[in-house]
Amino acid sequence: MAVVLGHNQYGKAENRVVRVFRDSDPHEIVDYNVSVALWGGQEAPHLTGDNAPVLPTDTQKNTVYAFAKEDDVVAQPESFGIRLARHFVDETEPITHARVRIEMYPWTRLGNPHAFTRDGRFVRTATVTYDGSTTWVVSGVEDLWILKTTDSEFADFLEDRFTTLAPTHDRLMATSLRAQWWHTGEDVDWGKSHDRVVQTVLETYGNHHSLAHQQTLFDCGAAVLEEQPEIAEFRVTAPNKHHFVYDLARFGIENAGEVFHADDRPYGLQELTVRRDDAPAPGLAFDPGQGW
Amino acid sequence: MAVVLGHNQYGKAENRVVRVFRDSDPHEIVDYNVSVALWGGQEAPHLTGDNAPVLPTDTQKNTVYAFAKEDDVVAQPESFGIRLARHFVDETEPITHARVRIEMYPWTRLGNPHAFTRDGRFVRTATVTYDGSTTWVVSGVEDLWILKTTDSEFADFLEDRFTTLAPTHDRLMATSLRAQWWHTGEDVDWGKSHDRVVQTVLETYGNHHSLAHQQTLFDCGAAVLEEQPEIAEFRVTAPNKHHFVYDLARFGIENAGEVFHADDRPYGLQELTVRRDDAPAPGLAFDPGQGW
Amino acid sequence: MAVVLGHNQYGKAENRVVRVFRDSDPHEIVDYNVSVALWGGQEAPHLTGDNAPVLPTDTQKNTVYAFAKEDDVVAQPESFGIRLARHFVDETEPITHARVRIEMYPWTRLGNPHAFTRDGRFVRTATVTYDGSTTWVVSGVEDLWILKTTDSEFADFLEDRFTTLAPTHDRLMATSLRAQWWHTGEDVDWGKSHDRVVQTVLETYGNHHSLAHQQTLFDCGAAVLEEQPEIAEFRVTAPNKHHFVYDLARFGIENAGEVFHADDRPYGLQELTVRRDDAPAPGLAFDPGQGW
Amino acid sequence: MAVVLGHNQYGKAENRVVRVFRDSDPHEIVDYNVSVALWGGQEAPHLTGDNAPVLPTDTQKNTVYAFAKEDDVVAQPESFGIRLARHFVDETEPITHARVRIEMYPWTRLGNPHAFTRDGRFVRTATVTYDGSTTWVVSGVEDLWILKTTDSEFADFLEDRFTTLAPTHDRLMATSLRAQWWHTGEDVDWGKSHDRVVQTVLETYGNHHSLAHQQTLFDCGAAVLEEQPEIAEFRVTAPNKHHFVYDLARFGIENAGEVFHADDRPYGLQELTVRRDDAPAPGLAFDPGQGW
Repeated sequence: MAVVLGHNQYGKAENRVVRVFRDSDPHEIVDYNVSVALWGGQEAPHLTGDNAPVLPTDTQKNTVYAFAKEDDVVAQPESFGIRLARHFVDETEPITHARVRIEMYPWTRLGNPHAFTRDGRFVRTATVTYDGSTTWVVSGVEDLWILKTTDSEFADFLEDRFTTLAPTHDRLMATSLRAQWWHTGEDVDWGKSHDRVVQTVLETYGNHHSLAHQQTLFDCGAAVLEEQPEIAEFRVTAPNKHHFVYDLARFGIENAGEVFHADDRPYGLQELTVRRDDAPAPGLAFDPGQGW
Repeated sequence: MAVVLGHNQYGKAENRVVRVFRDSDPHEIVDYNVSVALWGGQEAPHLTGDNAPVLPTDTQKNTVYAFAKEDDVVAQPESFGIRLARHFVDETEPITHARVRIEMYPWTRLGNPHAFTRDGRFVRTATVTYDGSTTWVVSGVEDLWILKTTDSEFADFLEDRFTTLAPTHDRLMATSLRAQWWHTGEDVDWGKSHDRVVQTVLETYGNHHSLAHQQTLFDCGAAVLEEQPEIAEFRVTAPNKHHFVYDLARFGIENAGEVFHADDRPYGLQELTVRRDDAPAPGLAFDPGQGW
Repeated sequence: MAVVLGHNQYGKAENRVVRVFRDSDPHEIVDYNVSVALWGGQEAPHLTGDNAPVLPTDTQKNTVYAFAKEDDVVAQPESFGIRLARHFVDETEPITHARVRIEMYPWTRLGNPHAFTRDGRFVRTATVTYDGSTTWVVSGVEDLWILKTTDSEFADFLEDRFTTLAPTHDRLMATSLRAQWWHTGEDVDWGKSHDRVVQTVLETYGNHHSLAHQQTLFDCGAAVLEEQPEIAEFRVTAPNKHHFVYDLARFGIENAGEVFHADDRPYGLQELTVRRDDAPAPGLAFDPGQGW
Repeated sequence: MAVVLGHNQYGKAENRVVRVFRDSDPHEIVDYNVSVALWGGQEAPHLTGDNAPVLPTDTQKNTVYAFAKEDDVVAQPESFGIRLARHFVDETEPITHARVRIEMYPWTRLGNPHAFTRDGRFVRTATVTYDGSTTWVVSGVEDLWILKTTDSEFADFLEDRFTTLAPTHDRLMATSLRAQWWHTGEDVDWGKSHDRVVQTVLETYGNHHSLAHQQTLFDCGAAVLEEQPEIAEFRVTAPNKHHFVYDLARFGIENAGEVFHADDRPYGLQELTVRRDDAPAPGLAFDPGQGW
């Protein structure tokens, strides 16, 4: 047998770029964390240490900051990612694939044209993958916390010898959502589209009468796909942030779902995909992370 | 010589209490992280392992959750802290001192009476200390990010052989504020007062033409004290979150304060106290942390 | 078009199990963080909120702690994962797949039979996936830091208009490794095998004269595969933890690779797979993470 | 009333310095995180934005890296801190006080003269404070985990209406220690002294039959002071990392202190000082943190 090189990728991760638009009045800013991964034609450095095909990650860093100067491109994480991914593949022999992942930290303007405060409601994300012909654009959101004080049930579930949970028809439900959605086209107002998805998810989650967390999450994805035809697939990871009713009866105090302990670990975790039945396969759209 | 016990304190830290107010329509919630520290009369457990004077931290936990049932008390972190601190000292022989530190995570209502999303702009804090007669109430804020794209200078500073920094008359300035302020009385609308301090800090920081970060921070504190007579002392810790102009000239690209690298470490750190000249000494108001 | 459910999985994440073996003298302990993910037959809860096919995550938690009582099973993360994964699929209609991921925190015995201190050199991991017939066992390590003060070069790389990096023939190289390796069989002394892989990686990385970080990492994987025939594939993610020589010449001080600034972000990131050319496809062995 | 400036300090925090000793064979390294805080004569920048008395934090950073070239000085965090603190006060009009806090990350040599792996058993710390005449040197340790499977009791404690904890005569006890100790002199082999303190703490904690966590911690401090006359005061903060026996009786499984859930929050927290009765007051030795 011989030992061979399998899939490999490399790049500069977590370039923290802040871009100020001074021509606009008031000033605008975008705050990004940009990670680049490239692959294609990289056998030599792995097998012999020959760096001829290696575009140094330091050069990738310079490129990220250089392209951040291009106003239209940098204004939205999706367009910035598209610009960078295509550059690295189209301009760099022998690179065949690029994936650019961007985290965006929203800021809110204060009462003057050049001061801002960080809006910590969520982190916006964009992942763009390009193989020399196809460009996959995935938008997303992370750390989006939602809590419902009622309208959530969990009952009539499977039981086995290890079942001790009591069914409930009224519980507090909370999560910190991580979602990603794949756009089949690029003719999109990225900012507007993102705002609308977040709004749809919040409204659906908040208004849904939930028999199962899975049902609530599926409905969030379904609502997004029904409203925005340019979105073909929606993936969500949602921890069930458990809030346990604290036993106050021991002290002669009634606790009718008023006082809760917010527990850390363990936590339920639901992960699911919602897609159009006529959508093409997502191909390389979604970053497989460590699993490749 | 003999080895003796010096200052000591103990308690239950980070009780994660969520309280739902179901009687109000729409529902209200508060989300707290409550840490209790008690001292007084604890020689025996340290010197001989005799636990007779020890109120177990488990009991302290039960107490925190039990008192969370009291509507008026739990509605504000300051009033909740006062209630808990006084209980532990007044009801527990031999405890002489209690300090209760509370972190509050704000939530924003969604479009229905029982759904919320986390508002991550900052964490609100309250620290209440009680010695059996005096109660010290300190309110605060953490993780309050502010960024200014201009109106900030730093020049004419001290130089020595290790000075390489160039003076500047226009820089991007950013920070993540941690502030605490001491109230001399308890006849305060805690929520209103906190909102007003945060608003004052944001407006002052944003509108200040800064010759030094120290000056901007002092003015923030001064503005708070001038507006709110019930506040006697204001303390702030403010990292200078450095944003470095990225050198694009190397690539023939002009960068007139538009593209920045947001660096992580090291960072400048300013810490200062602003107080009324006629204010009493703060005594035990401010938690000395690990230094005692 | 219709909206349909795609891949979905759910489970209880981060069950923090500590198991004490009291029958052995001296005592032994294992310290685990166990995450369970199940899939198969879960359309109903997503589409209608019917929980009939749902084994609650609370039940999964009870199961993890219950099986932790089984001495032989719990002693190694791989055997514990195999036991749990097979239970959930074989005993739970309609579950078809289970993936159990375990983090293990090593402890070192102190000078008596029942006291331990945490050994923070790395976190050991195991991921077991089962589909009702095939069981995939992947072992791994995280947070394994390695630093070399010399014997590392990086030169003769690709250049473009954004290249500013100077080639070097002697640099400090450091990383924090995350690696996973797939065993084709289960007739393995899991503890011995893990120790040997870590030892091989440390020795190879430390002794390798590096022309490229990629080359060093490939050689680490190759050495593991050459030594341990039961391992078919090795995957590694290795940030290049940059250490920059600090410019002291400005102060008339020579710095011949002695004083470095350890930077945080951005960082180079190399990810690669090393496999036997005669190895079968890994199938579901490696957790694809969020990308599925 | 007037608003006045109270205590203030400023500096460059978290300078990540790695120093390689290439002259020694094998190579040696130290890995530090150095934070500088200076005070004295800083009214002008706060009140008027006049930076004449301000030694920029950028200059402080350069100084830290420059002094890291001095072999004997940088070899131990205490001596490095002493060198830096004295420099900033003695060489900088109008600075009157300096506090230098250093975190040191230990590394272990691998099987060759220039490769290392990080030893994550604990973080070593040093805090040096200087006022122009007195130098206070405090050494410390953080993240030192200890776990005992037996020999720990907690019974006969105070009870009130909120007490539900059952007394126990055999429990699992675990903590993650943070300790600091003050040396009255500088004629100390800092490395040897630190190793000995850690060893004393581990042995005392491990071998102590504990009736109360407070007792165990006091004995750790007492043992340190008894062994090392140069140490006048020992302060420790020790969370009680709760491990709860998991209820398996519900499933007909006996659990005689074998299977535990390691909980995250809340946790008991013990903090105490052990000192010589003939020791002078520690003055500015211990950093009061945010409380000043």
